[in-house]
Amino acid sequence: MKLTPKGQATRQRIVEGAAEYLRSNDPGAVTLDDVRAVTHTSKGQIFHYFPDGKEQLLLAVAQHEADRVLTDQEPHLSALDSWESWSAWRDALLARYRAQGRYCPLGALMDQVSSTPGAAAVVSELLGQWQRRVSTGVVTMQGNGLVSSDLDADRIAGAFVAGIQGGVQVLRATGSTDQLESMLDLLIDYLRRS
Amino acid sequence: MKLTPKGQATRQRIVEGAAEYLRSNDPGAVTLDDVRAVTHTSKGQIFHYFPDGKEQLLLAVAQHEADRVLTDQEPHLSALDSWESWSAWRDALLARYRAQGRYCPLGALMDQVSSTPGAAAVVSELLGQWQRRVSTGVVTMQGNGLVSSDLDADRIAGAFVAGIQGGVQVLRATGSTDQLESMLDLLIDYLRRS
Repeated sequence: MKLTPKGQATRQRIVEGAAEYLRSNDPGAVTLDDVRAVTHTSKGQIFHYFPDGKEQLLLAVAQHEADRVLTDQEPHLSALDSWESWSAWRDALLARYRAQGRYCPLGALMDQVSSTPGAAAVVSELLGQWQRRVSTGVVTMQGNGLVSSDLDADRIAGAFVAGIQGGVQVLRATGSTDQLESMLDLLIDYLRRS
Repeated sequence: MKLTPKGQATRQRIVEGAAEYLRSNDPGAVTLDDVRAVTHTSKGQIFHYFPDGKEQLLLAVAQHEADRVLTDQEPHLSALDSWESWSAWRDALLARYRAQGRYCPLGALMDQVSSTPGAAAVVSELLGQWQRRVSTGVVTMQGNGLVSSDLDADRIAGAFVAGIQGGVQVLRATGSTDQLESMLDLLIDYLRRS
């Protein structure tokens, strides 16, 4: 659907309002009426932007949360050019996930829309972008002579993304960030020793 | 509920039949009638063992699948005492998840029951047992003089579990086992270089 700038702004307002609301409410139990109320929109507006209903809205919110996963890691993620910057990124990631705790907004949304066409693409795109940014960081470190050029930057970036993803899954299940912390420290240590 | 041996056997038959069925059917769409049909049980029997209904049955199946995650890694996981055995474990894990592909039976069940009391405990217990077994392997390697005694076995075991978990999550989203493979190779390499 091609939207006018005003239409885009309204759609964005609905997505952002719904995202805010869903950060403290179970996406499974939320209704379009709840979203209408918290975003001060009409039934017609919601239906106009999300004609396929709740799943379509939840998927748009999931996309919004996926974007936030990356922007929350800035400015560190796009500037991994010294050991200090890797360490600052690690600290920022841990702080973000400690603050978040067991409840992962993106994870809760994905639980709801996991069988929706388009859901896997949202996650794939997030993981791909994330891996490319980490890979760029590794290549930069190799260029600066700080990491061995024998390392396959893309492979190790894939391990970082999988490792963080896994640490967050463990956090969701157990409430502990210990494994996420171990994982990040081990991966950075691996780079340092290369 | 205290069950007689015969009752336990019937309950087990329902859980195993449901697990088999749910490996190729979406848990979200399955009904208790489907389970009754595939396990050749009566409505009364299903209700007797799972009085709280579908979620309770799905949680029992999730527990069954969680147990399988560990047993599928045997005999390797309980005998990580040489580099050959770590390598055999790695190969077995990759083969299992390659065969499984994008559809993770435990993951699909957890999506359904994630807000059920008891669901987080099933995953926590799985992750804890898994980490303890890997940790035992690291300690054994340290005892054999193959891994540095400076390493914190429990921390590195936590990284393994988070890393595998993350690799499997990436597989679910993208269909690729590349990140899982990178992760396992990196972690074993990290141990070797310690």
